[in-house]
Amino acid sequence: MDTATFIGLIAGFGLMASAIVLGGSPLLFWDFGSVLIVVGGTLAATLMNYPLSDVLSVLNTLRNAFFHKETQSEAIIEKLVGFATIARREGILALESHASETSDEFLQKSVQLAVDGTAPELIKDILTTELAFMEDRHAVGQSVLTAMGTFAPAFGMIGTLIGLIQMLAVIDDPSRIGGGMATALITTFYGAVMANVFFLPAAGKLRVRTASELLVKEMVIEGILSIQSGDNPRVVEQKLKAFVAPAIRSKVTTGKK
Amino acid sequence: MDTATFIGLIAGFGLMASAIVLGGSPLLFWDFGSVLIVVGGTLAATLMNYPLSDVLSVLNTLRNAFFHKETQSEAIIEKLVGFATIARREGILALESHASETSDEFLQKSVQLAVDGTAPELIKDILTTELAFMEDRHAVGQSVLTAMGTFAPAFGMIGTLIGLIQMLAVIDDPSRIGGGMATALITTFYGAVMANVFFLPAAGKLRVRTASELLVKEMVIEGILSIQSGDNPRVVEQKLKAFVAPAIRSKVTTGKK
Amino acid sequence: MDTATFIGLIAGFGLMASAIVLGGSPLLFWDFGSVLIVVGGTLAATLMNYPLSDVLSVLNTLRNAFFHKETQSEAIIEKLVGFATIARREGILALESHASETSDEFLQKSVQLAVDGTAPELIKDILTTELAFMEDRHAVGQSVLTAMGTFAPAFGMIGTLIGLIQMLAVIDDPSRIGGGMATALITTFYGAVMANVFFLPAAGKLRVRTASELLVKEMVIEGILSIQSGDNPRVVEQKLKAFVAPAIRSKVTTGKK
Amino acid sequence: MDTATFIGLIAGFGLMASAIVLGGSPLLFWDFGSVLIVVGGTLAATLMNYPLSDVLSVLNTLRNAFFHKETQSEAIIEKLVGFATIARREGILALESHASETSDEFLQKSVQLAVDGTAPELIKDILTTELAFMEDRHAVGQSVLTAMGTFAPAFGMIGTLIGLIQMLAVIDDPSRIGGGMATALITTFYGAVMANVFFLPAAGKLRVRTASELLVKEMVIEGILSIQSGDNPRVVEQKLKAFVAPAIRSKVTTGKK
Amino acid sequence: MDTATFIGLIAGFGLMASAIVLGGSPLLFWDFGSVLIVVGGTLAATLMNYPLSDVLSVLNTLRNAFFHKETQSEAIIEKLVGFATIARREGILALESHASETSDEFLQKSVQLAVDGTAPELIKDILTTELAFMEDRHAVGQSVLTAMGTFAPAFGMIGTLIGLIQMLAVIDDPSRIGGGMATALITTFYGAVMANVFFLPAAGKLRVRTASELLVKEMVIEGILSIQSGDNPRVVEQKLKAFVAPAIRSKVTTGKK
Repeated sequence: MDTATFIGLIAGFGLMASAIVLGGSPLLFWDFGSVLIVVGGTLAATLMNYPLSDVLSVLNTLRNAFFHKETQSEAIIEKLVGFATIARREGILALESHASETSDEFLQKSVQLAVDGTAPELIKDILTTELAFMEDRHAVGQSVLTAMGTFAPAFGMIGTLIGLIQMLAVIDDPSRIGGGMATALITTFYGAVMANVFFLPAAGKLRVRTASELLVKEMVIEGILSIQSGDNPRVVEQKLKAFVAPAIRSKVTTGKK
Repeated sequence: MDTATFIGLIAGFGLMASAIVLGGSPLLFWDFGSVLIVVGGTLAATLMNYPLSDVLSVLNTLRNAFFHKETQSEAIIEKLVGFATIARREGILALESHASETSDEFLQKSVQLAVDGTAPELIKDILTTELAFMEDRHAVGQSVLTAMGTFAPAFGMIGTLIGLIQMLAVIDDPSRIGGGMATALITTFYGAVMANVFFLPAAGKLRVRTASELLVKEMVIEGILSIQSGDNPRVVEQKLKAFVAPAIRSKVTTGKK
Repeated sequence: MDTATFIGLIAGFGLMASAIVLGGSPLLFWDFGSVLIVVGGTLAATLMNYPLSDVLSVLNTLRNAFFHKETQSEAIIEKLVGFATIARREGILALESHASETSDEFLQKSVQLAVDGTAPELIKDILTTELAFMEDRHAVGQSVLTAMGTFAPAFGMIGTLIGLIQMLAVIDDPSRIGGGMATALITTFYGAVMANVFFLPAAGKLRVRTASELLVKEMVIEGILSIQSGDNPRVVEQKLKAFVAPAIRSKVTTGKK
Repeated sequence: MDTATFIGLIAGFGLMASAIVLGGSPLLFWDFGSVLIVVGGTLAATLMNYPLSDVLSVLNTLRNAFFHKETQSEAIIEKLVGFATIARREGILALESHASETSDEFLQKSVQLAVDGTAPELIKDILTTELAFMEDRHAVGQSVLTAMGTFAPAFGMIGTLIGLIQMLAVIDDPSRIGGGMATALITTFYGAVMANVFFLPAAGKLRVRTASELLVKEMVIEGILSIQSGDNPRVVEQKLKAFVAPAIRSKVTTGKK
Repeated sequence: MDTATFIGLIAGFGLMASAIVLGGSPLLFWDFGSVLIVVGGTLAATLMNYPLSDVLSVLNTLRNAFFHKETQSEAIIEKLVGFATIARREGILALESHASETSDEFLQKSVQLAVDGTAPELIKDILTTELAFMEDRHAVGQSVLTAMGTFAPAFGMIGTLIGLIQMLAVIDDPSRIGGGMATALITTFYGAVMANVFFLPAAGKLRVRTASELLVKEMVIEGILSIQSGDNPRVVEQKLKAFVAPAIRSKVTTGKK
């Protein structure tokens, strides 16, 4: 799990928990009916909004986003410059065996297309199409989580309205209003916590991860096309470094002495 | 009806109902005047906002979205690759009879255009135009439902304001404020439930459905153009697989041994 | 007046009125100062935001949107296919006299350009420019109404704040808070009703109307260019039908047996 | 000052003032500390958000928007058609002396470029670039005012929170809550008035003005290019009229008999 | 530190502080638990939303935005026109030594590319790519600060909900509600101040700074391409002045007599 997410998630829930415990009995904040309305309502609205497969795939996408290590831009530059050097020395066909060693499917496919002698425009076309649809699919995950992040506070408010109506209708002793109000507000609290401690930041994380994955894949496309056109490794490196921040550029060590 | 929608709809209303029943008399949540203001106001604003035909067509669109089975991406790939094989073996004219067997009008039309020897740019032009206008028409349904999802809470609030003004103006006995407030809040509750349990998730569903229909139709266009240009079935398959997730790619069985 | 708008407008205000009458004295909801703040404030902000001519033209645009009959897509297809038939039989010059019979200025101008032998790219250029600026002008009306729909609730809230401050500052008898609060809330009520019963749905209607007018004009452009290029009437019909829903396509009767 | 703005500004503040005076002592609505928080806070946040020069230039832009007379579309058409007539009769070089009489710098520059024999693509390129950056600069003014229109209510709310916390913490006599609450609400009132009576409508005005200035400048570009290409004055007129509403077209009197 | 930011930041916090001190004991506004919930919660959500490196880089970006002096448009025009003069007189190779004196890396790189005789399209391509990715990276900083500006009020509200629930549940003496409410509102106050006095204006500043940096870099690209194509210094000046406001144009002194 990447450190920031881990710290964020633990800290978020930890802070809520300690604020609750320090301020009195934590039981004040537990109400099964409220959990049902907010969690259940959010899930119900989400299931109606998205196909079951999309909702389930979010779990998968989240696991990837939280646990998989990202490909570093510097690593992909080094690898592609390495490939350029090999292609220069031994011909582009020599890349076939090297590509099959990498675990990155997209890179493998790109190299394969170049090795097969596919026309550059066609390579660009195929890979860009794949990129565009990958972006669309990843957007589904963000969209589901963002929807959950807006449904949760809405159902929190609905729960509070139910509680208020039930309490106000039968109230006769003003001194008991406080307790009823407290219970009614619990659903609003649940909704706000679910949205802000989990759903919205998780949706944001997916967006950030998608952006950095797309960047790496765009670098692969640029790199492969550059290699195929016979550019020398220095030019390949130059072109790829334009994609990254100056701070990262200096971290790239392409093994040339 | 697709399972997720069904579960979502039932669960959403079921949860509201049980929260209401468990917390006291369900009669507290029934007020005919409130129904009139929220449901009536929402419909009135929607009718003013959209032509009658658009509002009525939403019912139709919703029925399609909830009950019609979607064309699966893997099925359309298999069918198009099958067509490519036939076109290779028996010539493109042989597709005419096969196309007439499918129930998909868009596919039929596409094949017909190819069989008629229409120029590729013209085919692309005609089908893309049709796609664009289909997207526009589908957007109307989402737009109507989204509008209803914003009008409903607004009329809920208007109803609550009416109730509050009527109650506050004549109040003399503070102990009766509770009951009046409860009644006033019912319209806000109705508006929030209508928007979040039905209108907004239904609008979201239409958006998702439109996106997946468009994807399938884009695959048809790509596939037909590829077949017409004489690509071999493997290439057609490659091109189409770029549109879908890796997980779906492996599900495609194009019948080649 | 088109039926949906009429029903919507009457029903919207009718529902508000009956909710008010059924709940007690309608006089509770009348306060001249409140009308002044909300209606006056909204108009003032709108006049500051837009040139006088834009604000006045909204009345005109609304009258068009509510009372003028829209050109039906099926009618324009039939007319254009008819023109195509005439052009085929009697030459394109024969269209001149037929065009002058139609009341649609845009169609007349388009035919005139074709009859004058203007180059197709130039026709497309001139008509598309006109379309784009027409869209911009129509957008002004929507923009004014949308602005009014956001200013109205804002001035409603400002009125309520004025009322609250005045009441709270001099209150000494808690039993009189109710009445003051009721009066203060009236402006919020006015603002919410003005926005949701009139301004926002009317802005929405203009948007819908503009979209359907643009569609008809795009069909005219496509049709004229197709006729000028000598397409046969069937092809013209095919091209135009791509613009409309399948349900409308079957309604087109182009008079060919 | 253009009439609508003037009426709007006076009416807006006038309405607020009369509602305040009619409802009791206007002193209720004056609190120096509240002015400081809302006005000061809004300015502070704006200064942090924008460079000092941008904030100061808003004053300038506003003066232009409120006091300068706009160039009328019909006037610019007449002038450009006049230029076209001159260019036809006396050659394009004859425009030099006429252009130097106009006070419109952009028109002068455009004519100069044409007179200098600059290639059409280059003229278009230079003028379009200037237009694009002019639009960007004008957008700064709108952006500053819109930001002020969102900061003002936010600092209004912050002021109210400060007032509420101070009052609630020391309250022991419930009968004094009213007065404290009234004072606390004054900042919210200030924020809402500043945003809705001034900042937001003024930002809207800038947007409208920019749009109409851009339109006039686009007409100048189109007209100059048309004149340079030797179009006859009637064609120039036709092309320019496509930019404006039919109602304005009939107002154009190009002095031809 | 640029003056406006400095004044804004000091004034913002100063105003809050004086409003607090003038209204009573400042201790009313200090509650360590509240700081923990709002500051901690905002940080936790941000860390979950963004990779640690992005969050840390915001500090760096902010320091740049607040302390680094911006390149003035007029300075860059003067420098580029100077380069054009040198290139004219001594040939483009003479620029190499002059470029190495400037501290602007982007300018150096641009000149180097021109000196190396790189093809104009390639120069444009490389520099535009670098610009686009620079814009993306800067957008990260704005995005992080904007996210913090929305999380802060949300956690403020969550803290208030926690406080309200704890207070209301155990209340028996209505006279003590005031104090509890005051404490509960402190978190809302913290959230609103953090967002409006710091996060949102700081995010806005980054946006403004990025826009002006991009403008300067676009001028460098335009200028270098113009110089490389052999344009004379006057033309280079003309082209660059189209990027800036008329007011700035007159400030440019290109040292020609």
